Amino acid sequence: MIGPVRWRDGVLEILDQRRLPAAEVWLACDNWPAVAEAIRTLAVRGAPAIGIAAAYGLALAADREAAAAGLKAARPTAVNLAWAVDRTLQAADPLREAEAIAAEEAGRCAAIAAAGAHLVPAGARALTICHTGALATGGCGTALGVLVLAHREGRLREVVACETRPLLQGARLTMWECMQLGVPARLIVDSAAAQAMLRGEVDLVIAGADRIARNGATANKIGTYALAVLARHHGLPFYIAAPTSTVDPATPDGEAIPIEARDPSEVLPAGALPGTRASNPAFDVTPAQLITAWITERGVHPSAADLAPSS
Amino acid sequence: MIGPVRWRDGVLEILDQRRLPAAEVWLACDNWPAVAEAIRTLAVRGAPAIGIAAAYGLALAADREAAAAGLKAARPTAVNLAWAVDRTLQAADPLREAEAIAAEEAGRCAAIAAAGAHLVPAGARALTICHTGALATGGCGTALGVLVLAHREGRLREVVACETRPLLQGARLTMWECMQLGVPARLIVDSAAAQAMLRGEVDLVIAGADRIARNGATANKIGTYALAVLARHHGLPFYIAAPTSTVDPATPDGEAIPIEARDPSEVLPAGALPGTRASNPAFDVTPAQLITAWITERGVHPSAADLAPSS
Repeated sequence: MIGPVRWRDGVLEILDQRRLPAAEVWLACDNWPAVAEAIRTLAVRGAPAIGIAAAYGLALAADREAAAAGLKAARPTAVNLAWAVDRTLQAADPLREAEAIAAEEAGRCAAIAAAGAHLVPAGARALTICHTGALATGGCGTALGVLVLAHREGRLREVVACETRPLLQGARLTMWECMQLGVPARLIVDSAAAQAMLRGEVDLVIAGADRIARNGATANKIGTYALAVLARHHGLPFYIAAPTSTVDPATPDGEAIPIEARDPSEVLPAGALPGTRASNPAFDVTPAQLITAWITERGVHPSAADLAPSS
Repeated sequence: MIGPVRWRDGVLEILDQRRLPAAEVWLACDNWPAVAEAIRTLAVRGAPAIGIAAAYGLALAADREAAAAGLKAARPTAVNLAWAVDRTLQAADPLREAEAIAAEEAGRCAAIAAAGAHLVPAGARALTICHTGALATGGCGTALGVLVLAHREGRLREVVACETRPLLQGARLTMWECMQLGVPARLIVDSAAAQAMLRGEVDLVIAGADRIARNGATANKIGTYALAVLARHHGLPFYIAAPTSTVDPATPDGEAIPIEARDPSEVLPAGALPGTRASNPAFDVTPAQLITAWITERGVHPSAADLAPSS
């Protein structure tokens, strides 16, 4: 499977996810501000992937302290970004550290998939939101990695992909990856998820995470909280799949997670009257009580108390 | 306020709602198939408005039986369409009947607004979906008419408009009408509704209807059912505002309401791989138990038993 970044002769090449699925364009970044800009503008996105990209960005920097601050400021919600930057900043060889982080995240993805795939019953249809596959992680993915493995094991019947407004990561990236991998997938608008559940077209919901607070409150793409409430109403399990690099013990609860407010222009329709007001939160927070279990590289955790990093 | 259709010298002019807010284009229809096509392709939409347009369409027809069948087949879910066509078909003078239907729907809108505006508490923020204003009804609107009147009466603080994927009637039409009328409004993506409720940014939810079954199950724009579940979870009232022309005693329950499946291409992103699968249901059905009350031109009805037409 294609990954979100590749290192070639001192240059970080980033697959521009904004252009998919229409075109496969690689951005060549030979300086850290270019990497920060690619993160800020979502050329590369997905919590593990932006951590990896930022780590490589630091390897491109002469003034590493300034680069670390600039890269961490690119996006506020995913804790993996700050985590990977801080770790790379403390390393003697930043390039080697970036490579180690990328390899570790890929390993964590494989472990998450192995831990979670058995939660998918035979013949199940799994609903997901945003994109949590190879392009978001550098490995096989988190939530989508679980589903791809469950499909390989012959149990998953279908991925039901929410399109994920406003930037359509589900429609553009999840559908694209599923088709590349031969995983049956069907696209719906986000607001059709409830009816799909009511009609029995969904057997479980699984999503990724951008930050998991100490009490288990989980920030993820806007719309995830709605899916958790809807899953509870329809008696469906709701899982979060994420590496423990997404767990932030320094954040006590959901209130303390910074939610990125992106430009309202991403939501406005063509020809909107001047002065049209819009809110565009990129994430929401799902309380622990609505989460059936978290799936990490360490296993399946029905309680948030089990999520604290073991290190 | 501008209306969805106007009759001029034997021609039905239809405001092309697909082009709004970028352009105001009127389609001149001098034959019924052109009216049916405008209904089918959503140039005119909104349950009362398509009934009115179809009634005028019948007035353009030489073979009225054929026209009635063709117009009724244009869209399946909104019962107003068949209701208005059947009524016009039985009338001696179809043009006069169409004008009567348009005038009656406008009167019903005014009565709905008068009946429902007091349900909006002082300082309230009301969340709505799709578009239920003048362009959808020919009067002041149904759900949006209630909110506009509540604003005139000094109570409504803000309309929170769900953009309404895939065709963005909320982003394009509700926001446009609110701005024209000076009603404060804010646009969000559909999947942000849950977080807005959790944060206390919504005090009530109000939506229109395309068909109300005998047991109160209410078909409306896809996403309405999700909002009803979310409103219940957050302890918020959920209202349906619709004329009794939307009530269909011949339909016993939600299962019996035909749900229009529109072309998947409306959901696919640019550049989607060939073979990408998508479902595109235009409506969903909200069970009566999730509806706090129905607001019709006859008043506020907490029970579906009160909805049967009095005729």
